[in-house]
Amino acid sequence: MSLCGFLVVLRLVPVAARYLLRRGMWGKDINKRGLPMGEIRVPEALGIVVGIVYLVIAILFQHFNFTADSMWLVEYNAALASVCFMILLGFIDDVLDVPWRVKLLLPTIAALPLLMAYAGGTAISIPKPLTSYFGVAVLELGSLYKLFMLLLAVFCTNSINIHAGLNGLEVGQTVIISAAVLIHNVMRIGSSMDIESQQAHAFSIYLVLPFLTTSLALFAFNWYPSSVFVGDTYTYFAGMALAVVGILGHFSETLLLFFLPEVLNFLCSVPQLFKFVPCPRHRLPRFDPHTGLLTGTKDGNLVNIFLRIFGRCTERTLCIRLLIFQALSCLFCFWLRYMITGWYK
Amino acid sequence: MSLCGFLVVLRLVPVAARYLLRRGMWGKDINKRGLPMGEIRVPEALGIVVGIVYLVIAILFQHFNFTADSMWLVEYNAALASVCFMILLGFIDDVLDVPWRVKLLLPTIAALPLLMAYAGGTAISIPKPLTSYFGVAVLELGSLYKLFMLLLAVFCTNSINIHAGLNGLEVGQTVIISAAVLIHNVMRIGSSMDIESQQAHAFSIYLVLPFLTTSLALFAFNWYPSSVFVGDTYTYFAGMALAVVGILGHFSETLLLFFLPEVLNFLCSVPQLFKFVPCPRHRLPRFDPHTGLLTGTKDGNLVNIFLRIFGRCTERTLCIRLLIFQALSCLFCFWLRYMITGWYK
Repeated sequence: MSLCGFLVVLRLVPVAARYLLRRGMWGKDINKRGLPMGEIRVPEALGIVVGIVYLVIAILFQHFNFTADSMWLVEYNAALASVCFMILLGFIDDVLDVPWRVKLLLPTIAALPLLMAYAGGTAISIPKPLTSYFGVAVLELGSLYKLFMLLLAVFCTNSINIHAGLNGLEVGQTVIISAAVLIHNVMRIGSSMDIESQQAHAFSIYLVLPFLTTSLALFAFNWYPSSVFVGDTYTYFAGMALAVVGILGHFSETLLLFFLPEVLNFLCSVPQLFKFVPCPRHRLPRFDPHTGLLTGTKDGNLVNIFLRIFGRCTERTLCIRLLIFQALSCLFCFWLRYMITGWYK
Repeated sequence: MSLCGFLVVLRLVPVAARYLLRRGMWGKDINKRGLPMGEIRVPEALGIVVGIVYLVIAILFQHFNFTADSMWLVEYNAALASVCFMILLGFIDDVLDVPWRVKLLLPTIAALPLLMAYAGGTAISIPKPLTSYFGVAVLELGSLYKLFMLLLAVFCTNSINIHAGLNGLEVGQTVIISAAVLIHNVMRIGSSMDIESQQAHAFSIYLVLPFLTTSLALFAFNWYPSSVFVGDTYTYFAGMALAVVGILGHFSETLLLFFLPEVLNFLCSVPQLFKFVPCPRHRLPRFDPHTGLLTGTKDGNLVNIFLRIFGRCTERTLCIRLLIFQALSCLFCFWLRYMITGWYK
């Protein structure tokens, strides 16, 4: 099924690209300004194709994976509604270019179906070293937990959205994260004895597998030099899909560790995002058309920080470096989980 | 809640209209060609506002209307996913203008969540006069019933979409139908003793009430002379919302009777839709800028047939006539149900 998704996306992207171009939804590649390549009209918002194919696959999945009276179905359908709503709002954003403060609101709205339907536990287990401070081993959060879910969804969508700007970076990072999520789920199913927890991880696999394959197909088009841009549609969709997977699979802490580069990028960006320091429209490095190299600017995002630390390089090299960093973060996360299991929780 | 929806839509439509205009999503009013009014750029696809407000209200509704372990929640969330998916596809259609054969496919895709999650009965009770022919009183359809649901969804969305072309007609007809659905539900809850059937009708009310109020707000903008167009987004959204309401409320036959004018319009259009007779892009009447009257053309749709039967008139009068016909059809449907109850089923 997921393999079909891969092939369908490969087929549909060029078709959709033609329609988007005709409708005037394109942008020029700013990181290639000054080259002939920088004058090509690159169609935008191709995330819409991935989103729709993903939804169709995930919907059909239900038929094979659940019995008709499974209580998981509520959450599954709520998850689909959330992801679908997010794609809709992301696409509206791409088409209409809504202002920044509305952008922050969009994931909040889209996460509503999930929050309303979430019926799982709202308690968190306190890490063992801290138990003595809290006095209890399990803390019941109630509505606060739903607030946490909401914040997680808003964070995931926006953090992917601002860790972007290079050919292939948006899709590359989500592919790596979702692969890590998949591996994590498989490992947990193998090691866990608890049937409830196994179900949660299986559930999470159903949602993340088609996401991984459809994104891979988009990656083929979005890799340097990009023949399509993914648009806010994709970054929102990806963030929401991963947040949903983490929440319903009950491993949101681990998910946040997978998001380490995005967290760092967000922290570096805080001064600019909250307007302590002036922030340009795009925080991209300077491109030199003669050498084809990028130079880091003073903007506080990971793209420019990497350029400042590791020196000037081409867009392709920079993207590879950032993706390696992403992969290392995920490995670090696995190692951390391995080390602290038993001691921490 | 639904009242809030009405007010929110009233507020948001002008804002969204500005954004849509800026993005170049507008059309000129063909039925006013030759007048100064016909040169105004009217923003299109305003159905998107109604759709999103409706979804948000319907999602929040869950919290008040259902207990956490209700089996209705699966269908409710699936219904939301279907409606949301339909809005997404409708908006994509408005933005990208997909070809006709793809248009027919869109409602099929959007109806998938509903089909997958539908857990209600798949049996129909045979009308009493026909029982002797079938030999059984209740016929189990199984998968055929799901096919019927799918066809109903495809029919509802497309029939509203082709019974259009006048200021206020699209929204007007759906407002009347949804009001009829609401009345029908209230009456059935009052008269029914069966708790299961009462729940189904209550469920249907939860979904149709916010639809009615949000559509009414849009109606205020779309009435002659229209300051906004609703776009395929709205017609698809409305059709899917009504189909979902009918299916999950278990009164799809009655719903089809409410759709009588659309059924007639569809039947008259069959020769042109299937290309037996050539079909222009828009099957609109001829407008005379001097008298301000419309003259019917030979096209086989209800708009032109009404003009041929009742003579030339203004766009406003024509729309009122068609809406009265819609209301009469709904009344006829109530009368028919009243007459045949007991004898028929």
